[in-house]
Amino acid sequence: MEQPTYALLIDCPDRKGLVHHITGVLYAQGLNIFGNQEFVEREHNRFFMRTTFSGAIDEAPVREKLREVLPDDAGIRLAQMRRKRIVVLVTKEQHCLGELLVRHQFDELNADILAVIGNHTTLAKFTHQFGVNFHHVPHEGKERGVHEAEVLEVIHRYQPEYLVLAKYMRILSPEFVAQYPNRIVNIHHSFLPAFVGASPYRQAYERGVKIIGATAHFVNNDLDEGPIIVQNVIPVDHNFSVSDMVQSGKDVEKISLARALKLVFEDKVFVYGNKTIIFD
Amino acid sequence: MEQPTYALLIDCPDRKGLVHHITGVLYAQGLNIFGNQEFVEREHNRFFMRTTFSGAIDEAPVREKLREVLPDDAGIRLAQMRRKRIVVLVTKEQHCLGELLVRHQFDELNADILAVIGNHTTLAKFTHQFGVNFHHVPHEGKERGVHEAEVLEVIHRYQPEYLVLAKYMRILSPEFVAQYPNRIVNIHHSFLPAFVGASPYRQAYERGVKIIGATAHFVNNDLDEGPIIVQNVIPVDHNFSVSDMVQSGKDVEKISLARALKLVFEDKVFVYGNKTIIFD
Amino acid sequence: MEQPTYALLIDCPDRKGLVHHITGVLYAQGLNIFGNQEFVEREHNRFFMRTTFSGAIDEAPVREKLREVLPDDAGIRLAQMRRKRIVVLVTKEQHCLGELLVRHQFDELNADILAVIGNHTTLAKFTHQFGVNFHHVPHEGKERGVHEAEVLEVIHRYQPEYLVLAKYMRILSPEFVAQYPNRIVNIHHSFLPAFVGASPYRQAYERGVKIIGATAHFVNNDLDEGPIIVQNVIPVDHNFSVSDMVQSGKDVEKISLARALKLVFEDKVFVYGNKTIIFD
Amino acid sequence: MEQPTYALLIDCPDRKGLVHHITGVLYAQGLNIFGNQEFVEREHNRFFMRTTFSGAIDEAPVREKLREVLPDDAGIRLAQMRRKRIVVLVTKEQHCLGELLVRHQFDELNADILAVIGNHTTLAKFTHQFGVNFHHVPHEGKERGVHEAEVLEVIHRYQPEYLVLAKYMRILSPEFVAQYPNRIVNIHHSFLPAFVGASPYRQAYERGVKIIGATAHFVNNDLDEGPIIVQNVIPVDHNFSVSDMVQSGKDVEKISLARALKLVFEDKVFVYGNKTIIFD
Repeated sequence: MEQPTYALLIDCPDRKGLVHHITGVLYAQGLNIFGNQEFVEREHNRFFMRTTFSGAIDEAPVREKLREVLPDDAGIRLAQMRRKRIVVLVTKEQHCLGELLVRHQFDELNADILAVIGNHTTLAKFTHQFGVNFHHVPHEGKERGVHEAEVLEVIHRYQPEYLVLAKYMRILSPEFVAQYPNRIVNIHHSFLPAFVGASPYRQAYERGVKIIGATAHFVNNDLDEGPIIVQNVIPVDHNFSVSDMVQSGKDVEKISLARALKLVFEDKVFVYGNKTIIFD
Repeated sequence: MEQPTYALLIDCPDRKGLVHHITGVLYAQGLNIFGNQEFVEREHNRFFMRTTFSGAIDEAPVREKLREVLPDDAGIRLAQMRRKRIVVLVTKEQHCLGELLVRHQFDELNADILAVIGNHTTLAKFTHQFGVNFHHVPHEGKERGVHEAEVLEVIHRYQPEYLVLAKYMRILSPEFVAQYPNRIVNIHHSFLPAFVGASPYRQAYERGVKIIGATAHFVNNDLDEGPIIVQNVIPVDHNFSVSDMVQSGKDVEKISLARALKLVFEDKVFVYGNKTIIFD
Repeated sequence: MEQPTYALLIDCPDRKGLVHHITGVLYAQGLNIFGNQEFVEREHNRFFMRTTFSGAIDEAPVREKLREVLPDDAGIRLAQMRRKRIVVLVTKEQHCLGELLVRHQFDELNADILAVIGNHTTLAKFTHQFGVNFHHVPHEGKERGVHEAEVLEVIHRYQPEYLVLAKYMRILSPEFVAQYPNRIVNIHHSFLPAFVGASPYRQAYERGVKIIGATAHFVNNDLDEGPIIVQNVIPVDHNFSVSDMVQSGKDVEKISLARALKLVFEDKVFVYGNKTIIFD
Repeated sequence: MEQPTYALLIDCPDRKGLVHHITGVLYAQGLNIFGNQEFVEREHNRFFMRTTFSGAIDEAPVREKLREVLPDDAGIRLAQMRRKRIVVLVTKEQHCLGELLVRHQFDELNADILAVIGNHTTLAKFTHQFGVNFHHVPHEGKERGVHEAEVLEVIHRYQPEYLVLAKYMRILSPEFVAQYPNRIVNIHHSFLPAFVGASPYRQAYERGVKIIGATAHFVNNDLDEGPIIVQNVIPVDHNFSVSDMVQSGKDVEKISLARALKLVFEDKVFVYGNKTIIFD
């Protein structure tokens, strides 16, 4: 019988002997280690380590032994590597959702899309084509708190590990975000220079930018801030109308979101402050 | 004997028959046309055309005939294609200057570097290695107007067509810029998201960006604004220290500046409002 | 009522006055010209021009007038710009087909997918989800000529303008290809260095390449040759297993194919010899 | 006083406990470990580890203790991190040499260019501008063995750790290469599809490629083979003449070579079979 595969992610203040002691705990278990990666963030002297291994372990005693050799405030994530449970939130644009649904159908997403929630019905039929549940939770005429409570009610039915904002055009309250800390991934258009406010592509067009970008990031308090996971760009030029720029933006957004989710769902991403450490 | 080669650049309000009438003027001269490119900016219905040709012409009558078939406010640039005369302004960083000097020495810049002006002496010896004049015009203890007058005095000796700001860390006054409208090319670091103020690489590091960029642009009033010519990016990750990011920034800056200058010096760039139209 | 929009593509031996005379024909019709692009291939002195315009025209007399001002062997394509009619051929891999079906459903493909033909049934259900016809034409136990005749019989029912080989793993005979000259677009993995034969990703892994690429091209006689439309690459490194490389290859393939089809379906691509001239 | 910084690179057959035992040796020395990276090549079950640390050590006993915990055939490289000693070989093209000389002058190469050797005098003056020795070792009228012996005689005077072939257009004999195993870095143009033989850019032009690439690699027996360190591409299109493609090729070559050397000189590169493992 094949043995389960684990990812162990540890972060803590750096000190001498950490790798030796951590690997000592694993060695004593007789595990097959596939790979270790460590990184020490110099600015704050923070240690990050990701280890993948296979073997039959009791998780609790291993965690206990790791605690013994680590600083008190160490973060320890020890979990079997497996498909993640996710819920996707959308509004009207299909490009990111389509990318996820196709990958999901052919088992390339490393996650189960348990449901899609939309504040509009635009993407209901499309979602159903893939045999995935769609929930319409309209926001019109509701206070944000009320709408969010309704959305959360649907989410809670599915017990997802991650939420994916696949062009969900609503700003989440801090209270909502606090329920899924570093568990919400958003995709955001972005430009050089950055444009804020309405009609960013119109602004980009007026400014004559030569590059359009996208940023996939965890959501903290602010919708378009939070630790960056992936950034990509695509070249444009004066021949691009505003709608051409929008189309290019969609292409780079969906690819960036898919790459970010792959990293997150394979347990390769640490969040530290407002940054990510990614062991790819 | 080989005939001279010309570039003709026209921009004016769009109307029917422009290409037909313009090419009619050229056809009547019996010229060899290498290529035409036209573009109509839809938002303001502005017509842009670049034609390259060879032949023995009297420039004045050709210009006159073009005026007759074009709207009154048409912009007409008709000039032989040849190496441009440039002066380069620097401060202390050598990466962009080095790129230009090496290309210049091996005749890959399509321009003659007449002189380098520095507000520090840091790059004097380096410039001299390439047999190029270096002028030190210190700014310390001088009002900006006084310093700029001294810089302009040196520039005027060389009668350059273009000024290149190759990491020149002084902000130019509107009066200075007005002397070389759309004739000053600057290279500017840029990020997603954009960081303003001191230590942008420190800010980028803190923010955990995954891409570092550079923007080569014409200088209008504001040092880091003005019509964009070229933008490029280079990927970075959590392994990059601030100084690694600075090094990556240098690499993308010098390449972006060199590409922008190639386009400008080959007369391929229109400026329209705060944008460029580039026929590459 | 909005007037129809046309694309006019001309290629012929270069000679003086071509642009003037061609635009003269259009000017006499009182058309609104959106854009012209011309290019002269220097090696063989071949002229290429693409013009887009709107207006109510009788196509036949315009073609006639163009013939009068052009060399005898000029190629003239004059057609209304509209969605193209296409049939897609597949085998078992879904990534390219999925990209096309999603874009098709949301009207981003600039083409109607009339049907999908597969030599396996693997993608039948997936295609049906999008409400598109799927035809299974198995090849097992048949001579190539017999199989191709069956495939062509299905194709002919739909009268498509273009065939798209979206990971169709069968080599087409010259007789098949001759029925759709420069009308069949294929997507092909590619590497630096190039690997031929079976298991190219295995070979690429063994060789330790740092880049994986894809080439979208027209099919001539040879499956993986023919005029290149789009090439893209994606970086890989030693961390990539063979299956990771396969996944990266899929990502770059589907994007490259989609971009190539956009260019082709917008009538922006000339084929000349074994090359393309693309007015983008 | 600041303590010396070391890089330790180990590769050997994988077995349980390697990281634990290796870090145990280092921990016993009380060293400050900056970072560990490990990788297990699954195909052949080969373990690779790179550790950087600072501290005052006696190298010999540390090596001895490492031997005790490692398989017999383990490769161990333990050396202070410092600027490498290099000799550069050139023919007539300056772009790669220029990139190296400028970086060298401003201490961005992490290496000392001890001398440049050319089989032509073309780059002598250019090299001297940077205050670097140039040796002309002409090959005309000599058998390869004789010429190589003369080149080696010059090289041996400088005792370099690495040789850089910066567009050195001579094929090295296996005997020559054997003197610097995995110590010779070459830069090679490359294309999709690959072109062999004379005039690759002419072939690429004829084929209408949309991408031009460059590969920096270690030299084994065959000039353009050997473990790949860096690959990059740059887009081209039908507007590019053969000479434009050559210029683009130069740009991507010099950047690729510089990046490869940075990795090699910072002791980040393992060679395994015909591949590289790079801990960047």
